[in-house]
Amino acid sequence: MRELFIETQEKEPEIKIPLPRVGITNLRTIAKINWKGRVYTFIPTFEITIDLPREKKGIHMSRLVESITDAMSEAIEEEVKKIHTSLEELALAVIQRLEEKHRHKRAEVWIRTTLILEKMTPASNKLSYEPYDVEVGVIKEGDKIKKTLKVKVIGNTACPHAMANNEGKTHIQRAIGELEVTTDFNEYVTLEDMIEVVESSFSSPTYTLLKTPDENSVVRRMYENPKFVEDVAREILIKAKKKFPGKIHVKVVSNESIHKHDVIAEAWA
Amino acid sequence: MRELFIETQEKEPEIKIPLPRVGITNLRTIAKINWKGRVYTFIPTFEITIDLPREKKGIHMSRLVESITDAMSEAIEEEVKKIHTSLEELALAVIQRLEEKHRHKRAEVWIRTTLILEKMTPASNKLSYEPYDVEVGVIKEGDKIKKTLKVKVIGNTACPHAMANNEGKTHIQRAIGELEVTTDFNEYVTLEDMIEVVESSFSSPTYTLLKTPDENSVVRRMYENPKFVEDVAREILIKAKKKFPGKIHVKVVSNESIHKHDVIAEAWA
Amino acid sequence: MRELFIETQEKEPEIKIPLPRVGITNLRTIAKINWKGRVYTFIPTFEITIDLPREKKGIHMSRLVESITDAMSEAIEEEVKKIHTSLEELALAVIQRLEEKHRHKRAEVWIRTTLILEKMTPASNKLSYEPYDVEVGVIKEGDKIKKTLKVKVIGNTACPHAMANNEGKTHIQRAIGELEVTTDFNEYVTLEDMIEVVESSFSSPTYTLLKTPDENSVVRRMYENPKFVEDVAREILIKAKKKFPGKIHVKVVSNESIHKHDVIAEAWA
Amino acid sequence: MRELFIETQEKEPEIKIPLPRVGITNLRTIAKINWKGRVYTFIPTFEITIDLPREKKGIHMSRLVESITDAMSEAIEEEVKKIHTSLEELALAVIQRLEEKHRHKRAEVWIRTTLILEKMTPASNKLSYEPYDVEVGVIKEGDKIKKTLKVKVIGNTACPHAMANNEGKTHIQRAIGELEVTTDFNEYVTLEDMIEVVESSFSSPTYTLLKTPDENSVVRRMYENPKFVEDVAREILIKAKKKFPGKIHVKVVSNESIHKHDVIAEAWA
Repeated sequence: MRELFIETQEKEPEIKIPLPRVGITNLRTIAKINWKGRVYTFIPTFEITIDLPREKKGIHMSRLVESITDAMSEAIEEEVKKIHTSLEELALAVIQRLEEKHRHKRAEVWIRTTLILEKMTPASNKLSYEPYDVEVGVIKEGDKIKKTLKVKVIGNTACPHAMANNEGKTHIQRAIGELEVTTDFNEYVTLEDMIEVVESSFSSPTYTLLKTPDENSVVRRMYENPKFVEDVAREILIKAKKKFPGKIHVKVVSNESIHKHDVIAEAWA
Repeated sequence: MRELFIETQEKEPEIKIPLPRVGITNLRTIAKINWKGRVYTFIPTFEITIDLPREKKGIHMSRLVESITDAMSEAIEEEVKKIHTSLEELALAVIQRLEEKHRHKRAEVWIRTTLILEKMTPASNKLSYEPYDVEVGVIKEGDKIKKTLKVKVIGNTACPHAMANNEGKTHIQRAIGELEVTTDFNEYVTLEDMIEVVESSFSSPTYTLLKTPDENSVVRRMYENPKFVEDVAREILIKAKKKFPGKIHVKVVSNESIHKHDVIAEAWA
Repeated sequence: MRELFIETQEKEPEIKIPLPRVGITNLRTIAKINWKGRVYTFIPTFEITIDLPREKKGIHMSRLVESITDAMSEAIEEEVKKIHTSLEELALAVIQRLEEKHRHKRAEVWIRTTLILEKMTPASNKLSYEPYDVEVGVIKEGDKIKKTLKVKVIGNTACPHAMANNEGKTHIQRAIGELEVTTDFNEYVTLEDMIEVVESSFSSPTYTLLKTPDENSVVRRMYENPKFVEDVAREILIKAKKKFPGKIHVKVVSNESIHKHDVIAEAWA
Repeated sequence: MRELFIETQEKEPEIKIPLPRVGITNLRTIAKINWKGRVYTFIPTFEITIDLPREKKGIHMSRLVESITDAMSEAIEEEVKKIHTSLEELALAVIQRLEEKHRHKRAEVWIRTTLILEKMTPASNKLSYEPYDVEVGVIKEGDKIKKTLKVKVIGNTACPHAMANNEGKTHIQRAIGELEVTTDFNEYVTLEDMIEVVESSFSSPTYTLLKTPDENSVVRRMYENPKFVEDVAREILIKAKKKFPGKIHVKVVSNESIHKHDVIAEAWA
């Protein structure tokens, strides 16, 4: 016999206002993706929210956790192989499980993680593993499903103004480029393509492994390709508009080597 | 005789797209405010941006720094006493100096800092200094000036659901409430009033100093006033709508004592 | 024919002082562990350092990166299955590859990551995945190999002082317990056992998934088991001294629900 | 008549182990310093701990808060002008108030804040305000008082290896230098001198304000003065050993512009 509990969440609240986003955040758990035919485990951070109607006091938080847990469980190994082929598919699978568990009009699942991609170094052609911060959000409202994909890429800028005034010498620094694309769920946008758009827009891409000839190649490329953060932002923006549908947000921040503060360029399209 | 430099910023860029936000960020410097008749020094973090038209390659970053430096300099001690009576007034003073230095259509100044307010403890009536994270943004576009004020307040939630199911026992935790108001610059909104709205919406306010009778008073108040994050968010929202003009954003995050993750409630009005 | 490069690192420095720790830090890459018979992928953060003798200007940083890259490469799938059965074994494998690449007297490899362990919820016996921050360091100096293991566990404290003064009511909050053990490499110490020591020392363990009967069980346990951070620190310390060899460091921080600051208790043994 | 409360802290604990560090941390409050004849307000973060003997269950946390609050109160304006002429003096004043309030054998006060110093730009001689993260700890054990001073300075490195292999071209990046000095309280060591030691050891100092001639001067200085993090660490170390008594710790981290990770050099003396 099941014990009966008071369901405070179902009561009428004193203040009857609907809330569009109620849920759990900063939840870290194990997840699996079938990426290009191989199953990878990783540990993303989740945020899951649903809307709360005006006449209910609260949502049942544990059902949101169960939607993730279920979608990750060993029992569904087969499902992982078939369906979780991207972070977006994983987020959608969590929303689908949530639909069986908790009534709502609107649901959002956000997954934040680090992606490691294989690159070849520019001169010695060695394999280098490159890390990228990525975030994917899937928002379902009624029958309409949208997605937001974000990437954060570490590159560099060589200042064209200092170069013009110092006979080719200039200040160089690490810069971080962010690109965000929001579109219908079914549109084809990949995190890898977005990373490529940002990484190719700096003075030079950066690499985890660089032997001396590779380092020389990166150094020369930076001097041949001096850029303000403004130039980097514009280049990301124009490439992203050509390549991706939907709304675009670009932000470039440069950790200036001659200042203690950063410089920023930001745009929307 | 002045040396002549190449002004790379003034050149035509290869990619001719206007950028709405270009400038400096994460700049920490000393600032002064005449708050209720006394001049206080503090060290905020600044972000200043202007728009970049399509036909210019870059902005002159150092002029943005000078706008802050000038507005802070010793020479203007008198100006501080008269004009910088709030963070918004300080931000506007920086924009006004920027107008003499760098042509633009749109300028934003954002100032992030910690505010310390004096409170009386609830039972022993001792003085307690309470810290609050605040941020103020002033956005000038043509003749139109808008402002955004943000406060972040540390409080707590005592769970009403666990209380109903455990004969008055429940889990309690630290919670963080954020309130953001965006309105015309001339509307009357103070950070102190916004802090009060958030702080009074938790199960109880928190205090830096609590002697045993004060601690007892806070503990009892939490049990008399159990709240979900949903309840806290709704209460902030309804109070803010009554008290402040403009657009409102509310976010409450609770650092659950029974979970390793957080719960969240968020709304806009 | 191989191009000849200048090896600036091998030159004599102007200031001839040996440096005990020179290397790379904050390097994120993909790693693999054979944990209890299954190969898991994850993305840790690495720090690798070696000593620099007084007569050399610098170390060859890329060889440190290669030591990681080699230890992770696909080609060594078999090695992973046999050898990388823990983070410490992985760290040692990186040091062993480094020994073939770069002369040194002392080498350190530090690996930081998140561990997900399976727990059963206390009443409904459901599976819950729990995240823990862990760090492992292996230090080789001549023939001597030492290791440091660190775990960071999220739990809670229910204040016994407020409970005694408020007829059983009290303030409760999230608390974070850290345990660090430094010992010879060959001593048997597992991160799982260390996590268990910390997690069992709070007022109650915490769970990612809690259905109502589980939540009730956790709430009741907290009230039956009130603890200061001092009590938690002492309990971790006494259990760790019984269970683990070597040097022990304990730190407990409580995110007070009645204050805006935290409280701390710290000890060494 | 004073209400009587149960003092749980004074009870015997179950586990009788002394704890060397128990107290409050991450407490932000307003503080005042009489620096070179002028009273400045600022908002540091405090950590205060005392030792807990084996036979007591806990410490009285509120007395630690009162020690800070008292030392900051308006009533002692005169004391500030006379005594709080440095962060160390402020920390000692807090310890002295603590001695009247709570019995202990060992007390520590740590104060973390940002210091703004005035510098002149290298070519145009304009005033520039530079921010530095600093931390001061005062530890009193019996009659013996020691202090630890830490500074964190943002500078840069221009790589000598890439410069030698690329006809004077090289990669440049922001670097962060940390210096820590631990000595008897009465030894003369100032944060300003420590900052100067670190800042002068980079390829070039950095400035918040740089007009074009200043920027050119910094750029040229970086190319005339290429340095590995190893070189920066050695130079800080040798200067610090000449200038300061006591124990020294140096750490330099460079945010490489050609990599996504950082490089590090660390030493003790």
